[in-house]
Amino acid sequence: MMNYRIVESVGEGVEEMMAGDHVLPIFTGECGDCRVCKRDGANLCERFRVDPMKKVMVTDGKTRFFTSKDNKPIYHFLNTSTFSEYTVIDSACVLKVDPLFPLEKISLLSCGVSTGVGAAWNVADIQPASTVAIFGLGAVGLAVAEGARARGASKIIGIDINPDKFQLGREAGISEFINPKESDKAVHERVMEITEGGVEYSFECAGSIEALREAFLSTNSGVGVTVMLGVHASPQLLPIHPMELFQGRSITASVFGGFKPKTQLPFFITQCLQGLLNLDLFISHQLPFHDINEAMQLLHQGKALRCLLHL
Amino acid sequence: MMNYRIVESVGEGVEEMMAGDHVLPIFTGECGDCRVCKRDGANLCERFRVDPMKKVMVTDGKTRFFTSKDNKPIYHFLNTSTFSEYTVIDSACVLKVDPLFPLEKISLLSCGVSTGVGAAWNVADIQPASTVAIFGLGAVGLAVAEGARARGASKIIGIDINPDKFQLGREAGISEFINPKESDKAVHERVMEITEGGVEYSFECAGSIEALREAFLSTNSGVGVTVMLGVHASPQLLPIHPMELFQGRSITASVFGGFKPKTQLPFFITQCLQGLLNLDLFISHQLPFHDINEAMQLLHQGKALRCLLHL
Repeated sequence: MMNYRIVESVGEGVEEMMAGDHVLPIFTGECGDCRVCKRDGANLCERFRVDPMKKVMVTDGKTRFFTSKDNKPIYHFLNTSTFSEYTVIDSACVLKVDPLFPLEKISLLSCGVSTGVGAAWNVADIQPASTVAIFGLGAVGLAVAEGARARGASKIIGIDINPDKFQLGREAGISEFINPKESDKAVHERVMEITEGGVEYSFECAGSIEALREAFLSTNSGVGVTVMLGVHASPQLLPIHPMELFQGRSITASVFGGFKPKTQLPFFITQCLQGLLNLDLFISHQLPFHDINEAMQLLHQGKALRCLLHL
Repeated sequence: MMNYRIVESVGEGVEEMMAGDHVLPIFTGECGDCRVCKRDGANLCERFRVDPMKKVMVTDGKTRFFTSKDNKPIYHFLNTSTFSEYTVIDSACVLKVDPLFPLEKISLLSCGVSTGVGAAWNVADIQPASTVAIFGLGAVGLAVAEGARARGASKIIGIDINPDKFQLGREAGISEFINPKESDKAVHERVMEITEGGVEYSFECAGSIEALREAFLSTNSGVGVTVMLGVHASPQLLPIHPMELFQGRSITASVFGGFKPKTQLPFFITQCLQGLLNLDLFISHQLPFHDINEAMQLLHQGKALRCLLHL
């Protein structure tokens, strides 16, 4: 995705930015005015929240791509439509940034890295010296690890069926690895052994219902928190019995790491540029825009974390 | 249950109480020393947490009822064994109280009332002027209502299939009632209409999987929190799809309202005795101890909230 942009022109009434500004498009917006935007700790704006089914502009319900392919109109996607050289975006989904900032680097914060780090900071609120287990070591899972390390976690356990992920995981602060395919017991039993009773925080970043159950059972019964980040396409319900919620384990989820995209991201960007997180870790490949399909392939094959596309 | 006691004697090493002290037995204990006890916001003590399967004393793994019925030993139940005139309890499950306090009234705080009020205060953390829906108006549900009223909720909606509960509910601050049996649409749709988009907080106090789903859907998508308090005996899993956790609604549960029973209850007792809550509401019947089976009948029939048993 081309998650950084330079403004070409602004529509009527847009006052916070102008042509030439550097901006990040954000897939879930912030109107600043609704019940959710006005509440601390909530970030799913009533008007501009992400909705995979939405394909038009919120303001007038129309597409702004005045072109078509095979006589079918081209619609918007995830508020931002960033699989394109040019796009039209509601200003509620655009964050203006300092032109001195390295756009290609901070563009990582418009999705995966913020999602993972925010889950660790805003949602789980990881405390120093605590223990963490991360299921799935893609960009989001590694961002959780970076966030946990920055918070001073004492032990970060990474779980993935792709052994190639373990080297990168080490760079992100992961100290112990479990490959479920090579383990002779359930992952949560291994986590229990390593941590003497379970982690304080677990994160499911795999989109697997089995991983979700293992993540839940890997936490300490008494204080454990599981944060779900994976996208679950199967129709299966949460693999948890109601009574298990009485055992001192909780489960929650978040979109965009709980960050309010326009009001909270600027400080997070500053923290990243001060070196609190290692953003370079996440740019695994750089390709020209016309190789976008090859970039998607690399992601699917588990070979890439984020491909930086350039014109 | 006889949830108030006067100490007859103490065992070796017990220094915090002595014969003649007034105490409340608490079904989930607090050792003060484990990982959970040392953590703010957690109350399921690793050693003395409630466990319906446990039937012996934690300290030595034996029963202390040195008698039997039909040649079978009599075991402990829920740490306290309060369906009896005399009992033996670990000191971690006993709270010493001021002898001037009205024992028969504050005994309500050793279970249902603390569970409901604590869910409103400690778990949901209800904010002033917010909206609340309560599914199931037994003692726990009405305690949630009392807690919500004390926090300044602007609208408290009560849901129950027993219309007799509605009068008591009014006294506990409930302003709107829904009887699912008399509603021509799903309860959550009615709640959405009444609140223009859903409540901030919902509480499931019915032990019904259908009520749990309705409670979840009744909250505002963006800021909604559901707290589960009901006991669910069916093997059905949580009636929620993982992706629904991305819609700005969360679900959690708590035991004993999240109160640490020994360190946090004393202040709560003080608040109650200062009139913050109407405890008299919860004592619906008073019977002699030998009518304990009649008291259980009244509870099962939905006619009683709490029966105060006396010798």
